Amino acid sequence: MVKDLGEQGLLKLFRPFCSDLVGDDAAVMGSLPEGRELVVTTDMLIDGVHFSDATTSAEDVGWRAAAVNLSDLAAMGATPWGMTIALGLPPTTPVDWVTGVYRGFDECLRQYGSQLVGGDTVRSPHICLSVTAFGTVAMGRAIQRHTAKVGDLIVVTGNHGLSKAGLELLLHPELDEKLAGYSQRDEVIFSLKRSHQRPTPRLDVPPLIWRIIEEQLNIPEEFKIAGMDSSDGLADAIVQICQASGVGAHLYWSEIAIAEVIQFIAEENAIDWVLYGGEDFELVLCLPASIARTLVDRLPKSAIIGEIIGRDSGDLIEGLTMEGAFQHFQV
Amino acid sequence: MVKDLGEQGLLKLFRPFCSDLVGDDAAVMGSLPEGRELVVTTDMLIDGVHFSDATTSAEDVGWRAAAVNLSDLAAMGATPWGMTIALGLPPTTPVDWVTGVYRGFDECLRQYGSQLVGGDTVRSPHICLSVTAFGTVAMGRAIQRHTAKVGDLIVVTGNHGLSKAGLELLLHPELDEKLAGYSQRDEVIFSLKRSHQRPTPRLDVPPLIWRIIEEQLNIPEEFKIAGMDSSDGLADAIVQICQASGVGAHLYWSEIAIAEVIQFIAEENAIDWVLYGGEDFELVLCLPASIARTLVDRLPKSAIIGEIIGRDSGDLIEGLTMEGAFQHFQV
Repeated sequence: MVKDLGEQGLLKLFRPFCSDLVGDDAAVMGSLPEGRELVVTTDMLIDGVHFSDATTSAEDVGWRAAAVNLSDLAAMGATPWGMTIALGLPPTTPVDWVTGVYRGFDECLRQYGSQLVGGDTVRSPHICLSVTAFGTVAMGRAIQRHTAKVGDLIVVTGNHGLSKAGLELLLHPELDEKLAGYSQRDEVIFSLKRSHQRPTPRLDVPPLIWRIIEEQLNIPEEFKIAGMDSSDGLADAIVQICQASGVGAHLYWSEIAIAEVIQFIAEENAIDWVLYGGEDFELVLCLPASIARTLVDRLPKSAIIGEIIGRDSGDLIEGLTMEGAFQHFQV
Repeated sequence: MVKDLGEQGLLKLFRPFCSDLVGDDAAVMGSLPEGRELVVTTDMLIDGVHFSDATTSAEDVGWRAAAVNLSDLAAMGATPWGMTIALGLPPTTPVDWVTGVYRGFDECLRQYGSQLVGGDTVRSPHICLSVTAFGTVAMGRAIQRHTAKVGDLIVVTGNHGLSKAGLELLLHPELDEKLAGYSQRDEVIFSLKRSHQRPTPRLDVPPLIWRIIEEQLNIPEEFKIAGMDSSDGLADAIVQICQASGVGAHLYWSEIAIAEVIQFIAEENAIDWVLYGGEDFELVLCLPASIARTLVDRLPKSAIIGEIIGRDSGDLIEGLTMEGAFQHFQV
């Protein structure tokens, strides 16, 4: 248990996963490369709210804590630079669990090229994690929500609803039965659970878009990509972008992929899982048609699912209700 | 209660205290001024561990959350740039309490010239706060723990034990009686409680030291200030610096101020409160004699309390035991 380690013991546990910058009251990260801006984001994860022993191993908790923050950097078009992690732990937390969290966190950072530069470990009656991520973006190239324009096409970088399906399978093992006879059933179930436990930040997407833009000589120099990630659900992302940009959206409903397996599990709720399930950590982007079409050609599983329209009609998004949208404080 | 607000309502609460940078998945901070490095620190505060309704109002919780992080920046010689705050809240938390935290946080940031650039608010069974602060420091001028040298004098920037005394008075109102007849008793009690509730990050000290260094022409260009803050206690700070620098310390016991009022309240434990009480958020610095003496001349309440010696003797610090040192996981 961590209470047997004491603070110095906990520091020793933490140390192998840290960059050499750790050891003072704060980490000195160095200077920014010329022409780049600092990007900062923070996310908190609570035991029983954002993860639980039933659905997420310690390693997965660590991975998720890193990945959700890296997804925010990806959503800004930023490249990871460094991260801090603060852990609140009951004194009875098994030491293995804490090491597992650091290991999963480290694995994700290594995969996506970041480093752990600071932390805090404190006593708490309930497990909580807080991660802050830093990245850099070329001057003027940050992706933001408020720059969507009428005529832009709405692109998603992958399928939605998979994380929700994985979570439901983890919470309700009896759902497996709905997939009796489903082709490659075990692999499909594993892959859905994995979507929930090990989300993939789409750091690959913004560099690809800028390569496409550089090929297309008619793009003005001050061009900005509009978008965000779909961590709180696909519908939420579209609504947030529309609200921030003062525009509306017309969705091509037939283009919104509902994976066959989700239809098997969710039945008549399948479209809700896709729209409101959340935690898929794809990017939702608004791009001029030529860029959107080239991107979708090159990026497997991406799709054009609608277009940005003026906000003349009553609805922000034609035909879309937000009642099911994820509310952290729903009880 | 926050559960009546929902996520959008909570965002509205948060918004007035944020810089304009907030509104996307992450904040774009801009580029660093030339010749400056990024400094990053994080601290987590837990209800019942680091604060409680008995000792700390919501405003004080917000202030403390900001101040402990600013103290880490001060300890690095850095100037504040921006901060993020993540809040875990039970759904039944009063909205006024949350607003109070933001107000106290904001008050501290305004006073010391920082800005709130990001946050996260999530449901949690227990109140927790996590703050990450970043600042900038001139290239090569970061204060660190590992550069103390034999012959350096050990300087504290103020008195120790006051925060501990304030905490004890808040927790045990009957201690007031020990100060019966004490001159200006009410003011003294208020001031001690304030030391605990509203700690002052010593951001004023590093610039003063660099001004002194610039006056003293014999200081080599690559000179580095060694030190840290005394958040975990005066004794802990000295031990950490000695361990990191591979040196020992000889303390001038008679120079370690024990405020008369602490002797009244703590009686025979007074020296323990001073050495191990913690949370005074002063700086403990190791400086060449000429700089140390000039600093102490100019900085009220600062003192030279010892010198750095070789680690030849058995004890790290002559005559000092670390048994009482603050351990977050002590039960």
